[in-house]
Amino acid sequence: MNTIDIVVAPGPWDPEPWRKAFEARCGTRKVHLWPHDGEEVDSERYVICAWKAGEQVFEVLNRPEAVFSMGAGVDHLACLASQPNLPIGRIRDPDLTMRMVEYVTFATLYLHRQIAHYQAEQAAGRWAPVTQAAASDVRIGILGVGVLGKACGLFLQQLGFQVAGWARSSTEVGFKVFNGREGLVELLQQTDILVNLLPNTQETHGVIDRQVFENLSRSGKQGAPAFINAGRGEAVIHADLQAALREGTLSGAVLDVFGVEPLPSDDPLWSMPGVLLTPHVAADSEPDVVVGQILHDVFRLEAGQPLEHPVDLGRGY
Amino acid sequence: MNTIDIVVAPGPWDPEPWRKAFEARCGTRKVHLWPHDGEEVDSERYVICAWKAGEQVFEVLNRPEAVFSMGAGVDHLACLASQPNLPIGRIRDPDLTMRMVEYVTFATLYLHRQIAHYQAEQAAGRWAPVTQAAASDVRIGILGVGVLGKACGLFLQQLGFQVAGWARSSTEVGFKVFNGREGLVELLQQTDILVNLLPNTQETHGVIDRQVFENLSRSGKQGAPAFINAGRGEAVIHADLQAALREGTLSGAVLDVFGVEPLPSDDPLWSMPGVLLTPHVAADSEPDVVVGQILHDVFRLEAGQPLEHPVDLGRGY
Repeated sequence: MNTIDIVVAPGPWDPEPWRKAFEARCGTRKVHLWPHDGEEVDSERYVICAWKAGEQVFEVLNRPEAVFSMGAGVDHLACLASQPNLPIGRIRDPDLTMRMVEYVTFATLYLHRQIAHYQAEQAAGRWAPVTQAAASDVRIGILGVGVLGKACGLFLQQLGFQVAGWARSSTEVGFKVFNGREGLVELLQQTDILVNLLPNTQETHGVIDRQVFENLSRSGKQGAPAFINAGRGEAVIHADLQAALREGTLSGAVLDVFGVEPLPSDDPLWSMPGVLLTPHVAADSEPDVVVGQILHDVFRLEAGQPLEHPVDLGRGY
Repeated sequence: MNTIDIVVAPGPWDPEPWRKAFEARCGTRKVHLWPHDGEEVDSERYVICAWKAGEQVFEVLNRPEAVFSMGAGVDHLACLASQPNLPIGRIRDPDLTMRMVEYVTFATLYLHRQIAHYQAEQAAGRWAPVTQAAASDVRIGILGVGVLGKACGLFLQQLGFQVAGWARSSTEVGFKVFNGREGLVELLQQTDILVNLLPNTQETHGVIDRQVFENLSRSGKQGAPAFINAGRGEAVIHADLQAALREGTLSGAVLDVFGVEPLPSDDPLWSMPGVLLTPHVAADSEPDVVVGQILHDVFRLEAGQPLEHPVDLGRGY
């Protein structure tokens, strides 16, 4: 049988765990690392598995049978949008979804339970209990209600939070979803904790700006509203976020993604009170899980079948 | 009708929110604050609602028709055990249970998602992602599977964690429960994150000692095991906990309760790396919720009915 080899282009990630994970499961298929690890890619048939690897790999290796994003985002593959017949796959597995649910649940509880306050008091050696609102008095607004946003919203509902969302078009997800520009304002006015899970598309670029933060509710039980970004940094105007935190428009934030990553070490966000930063780790999948899912689709291609979850790069997800 | 007045003895808590919450809902019944707020308690019939108020209130006001604990714990009422005919009530409401679920879920995710590491890196302005285990690879052991322990365990199962518990006698709670001294060792050997939710009784005093920490699993995917205490501080040998953290037997801890509260400002725990402290706030109820539940029982007493959830002080819960 004419099998399909694998080119792994893990960009900023450590390549070795990926090479090992592919080699352990792909049988006689060859695994090539990009950039080249000493040898040319001489495979007749191959797919490219990439994560923020740059465009050059697609210029040099220009006959892939499919390209896979090794993470949930596909914005790093935008340069392939001009090739509508090239199948694009992405990771979409329960493990990744549950990791995002973990992260967003953690971040929501960190803000809701006023942990930044307690950590500041701890640093001063002070025992300083404060009044705590019930989850049922706290309104969560989720921007983006795809697989991840829906799962996070439904889970937070179980903790008693009031949950609503915002999406481009109307969808049924088990909580109220607002649409359009007016719908966004309406959602923000009844939101205490705003969660960004929008995909990175041209439409979502910079959509979270000063106006968004100013439209957030001022009637919450626990002071100024707060912000969680576990989607993409490009959705946020960075300077507006900094200003909102500095001026108290936002009382706190938990941020995993940034327009520029790694976040430069002199960025004021690193040391702003009430801000918790993590280095884009909300929902990384384990190599084994990612590899299993990609190989599932590679075997489908070898059998002449289409990808199981193809991505439409024109739409952006 | 001969109604029953209310004596509120909120001990270390700010008394005013309690006075207001009772007055707003108890109709023509009088509300007295202990210690006396200028006037003697002249009520013919009264109940005492107390939280760590000391024994003197029960010596001076020695004809209550019932005594209520204003929190989940009743150990502060131990001095009343010699009066078996005095009805004792406690708070046991979904709001309080959900607050405990919030806290234990937060604490578990804080440890699981390695937030102490990320906060140390944030303080140094460093972008330093680390490998993250899946929840399904992490084993949670819950000491005490009453209303609170059961609810926490079932919720953590939904996030994918492996959950087991330990209780005095065998119970059906939806996850495996070990019993007895041998059962405890067996549970610990397969536990990565240990959660204490035991009530404070003579039997649980100091039950969590050096040996317990040393018996915890050494085969977890993410280094040394960790400890959460949201039950009672008296269950833990304080010096053994400090030693386990200092020596690396434990990699981290989230602690809400202590043998001495407030925790003295010179206690080494305040500044140990990997330790998050909160000032006994895991599951305080809002006055409105507590008051509603107590008045429900007061109305039952006035109608000649028994308390809805009487406590057996001999057993301790």
